[in-house]
Formats: sequence, C-alpha cells, structure tokens
Amino acid sequence: LGATVELLAAHGYDGISYEAVADAAGVHKTSIYRWWPTKPDLVLDAMLTRAEAVIEMPDSGRLHADLLVFLREVADNVTSPLGRAVLLATARAGSDTPETEAVRRRFWEARFERAAERLARARDAGELPAGTDPMLLLELCVSPLHFRALISGQPIDDAFLHETLAALGVTPRARRVRSRR
Amino acid sequence: LGATVELLAAHGYDGISYEAVADAAGVHKTSIYRWWPTKPDLVLDAMLTRAEAVIEMPDSGRLHADLLVFLREVADNVTSPLGRAVLLATARAGSDTPETEAVRRRFWEARFERAAERLARARDAGELPAGTDPMLLLELCVSPLHFRALISGQPIDDAFLHETLAALGVTPRARRVRSRR
Repeated sequence: LGATVELLAAHGYDGISYEAVADAAGVHKTSIYRWWPTKPDLVLDAMLTRAEAVIEMPDSGRLHADLLVFLREVADNVTSPLGRAVLLATARAGSDTPETEAVRRRFWEARFERAAERLARARDAGELPAGTDPMLLLELCVSPLHFRALISGQPIDDAFLHETLAALGVTPRARRVRSRR
Repeated sequence: LGATVELLAAHGYDGISYEAVADAAGVHKTSIYRWWPTKPDLVLDAMLTRAEAVIEMPDSGRLHADLLVFLREVADNVTSPLGRAVLLATARAGSDTPETEAVRRRFWEARFERAAERLARARDAGELPAGTDPMLLLELCVSPLHFRALISGQPIDDAFLHETLAALGVTPRARRVRSRR
C-alpha cells in the first residue's frame, strides 16, 4: 500500500501497475493480485490507509473558526501532488464494479466522518439549524475546493474559504438558533 | 475540433493523440500542430467550441425554478460520457502552460457567462441579496454536482439539487430582499 501511494504521487493513476508496485514493494505481483484483484481496489485501499485520507476538524467551540481550519486542511490536501493524484485516481474509476463503489463509499465516509461528528455536536448545541445534515454541509463546503483544485484551476485563498462559508450561512458570529435550556 | 471531441467522448483524454485526430479528420498532423501546438490547447479548444460547453439558464422570472432547470442541465452534462470526458480532460491538465491556463479560464467564463448575466438581473431585481456575486453563486451550486459526478460518485437527484439551493439560501419562495422602488 505504501508503494502504491508513492507511485500514485510520483506518476499518477496511469503510473500504477501491478508490476511497478511489486517491484517497489519487493514482492511478487501474484501476491498483490491475491489481496487486491483489481487496480481500483488496490489504489483506493492505498488512498484510504496511507494518504492521510482522514481530515480532522478541531473542536474549539467556535464553529466558524474550526470550519476554516478544516477547509484549509482540505485545501492543502487537494492542492498537494499526493492529494491531487489520489483524487484524480478516484475520478478516473469511471466504470466501477460494485466492489470499487463500496470502497469509494467507505473512502468518502471515512474521510469526513470525524468532521461530521463535530458538526453534529455543533448542531445539537444550537450553533447550526436543527435540521442540518452534517455530511451534506461538509460536502457543500468541500466541493468548491475540489472544483477549483481539480477542475477549474482557480486559486483557493482564505477569502474564497470565507465566501464559501458565508454563502452556506456559517459566519464568524456563532449562530445560536435555539438555546439548549 | 469535431474529431477531437469525438475521440474524447469515445476514449477519454488518454485516447487523444495528434495521430488519431489527424486520421479521424483526414488531415496531416502537422496541420494540427500549426494551430494547436499542445494537446491541452487542442482539447480545450474542442471543448469550448464543440461540446455544448455553454450552459444556459432560462429567465422565467422565477429564480428558484430557473436555477433548477440550469442545475439539471449541468447534472445531465457532467454525468454524460462526453461531459464527463471533457471535464476529466480539463482535470488532467495538471501542469499548465500560461496558454493552457488562459484557455481554461476562457472555457469556464464562457460556460456560465449567460447564467451569470441572468443571476445579475435577478440580483438587480432584488431576488438575491444586493452583494451577491453571480459567478461565485454559480460556482458554489455547480461544484457539488461536479464533486458527485467526477469524484465521490454519489447520485445526483432532484432532492440533492433542492438541498444544494436551499443551503445557498435560494428557496422556491422569491426572496425579495429589497424593493426596487
């Protein structure tokens, strides 16, 4: 898995072959086939376990500040060579087997699971509207960063992160929409 | 350009070579090099002129309904084989020359220019807050569709379009934040 991630970062998805991974890892390629029967299986498992896939969100009690920290980490990840390669590797898996889809679903759940828990606490504390879906809010605020990093190529600066959060109704002033007691 | 788009749709970015385009178009490849000195130049110009790149937004006077029509067209585009191939082709151009960057910038401006004009009118009519940046609002509402279609692989249904618009403050009830007279 380490060899796969290194090759992914250095050469992108197209640079990954069972031969290259076997060479880099010092094993025979049949050993790799045994555990990861397809290239998407291998790549996604490597992403999940080795590419700092999980992005954390602090819990300072100030939601806007914590989301900014989180978004800056997402931005660093999606603009880094490794992060970019990993995401393009996911993007390339266009014709997916059910197995690959399951792996990808696990990847995205794992990636933002901790942050979603943080947002759920914020919602339960009244910092977000009661009906907020944490995963949806995360998806809507990370999507523009992925769009810029991978598709449109526009820069991602702090002003953009602030604008994105503001458009989603998250502002520096804590929004206590209802008191807990 | 037509041959390039056809090859792009059939085989993706990796399937595009000057040889293949020259064969399909019935010209010599030096003729192609003369006009498009690099592959990104060729692919992006083809995208811009031949791949139904420009996505229109109707102007019924009901902003939420018009944005839904627009987002459905974006969703159809990004989930179609051609649209997907075109966007992955853009995404692949990781190491860009200034020329390529300029082409890409033109592509994204042209793609949503008409829709941005529609939103500017909505803003001037008071249907959107006075400070709304039309291009930013469009970017924030199309990004989650690109994220799902190209990266996370989750389905894009009407419920998701509604949720996205609602999170960005666009609801079926016209938001007249200020009267014009």
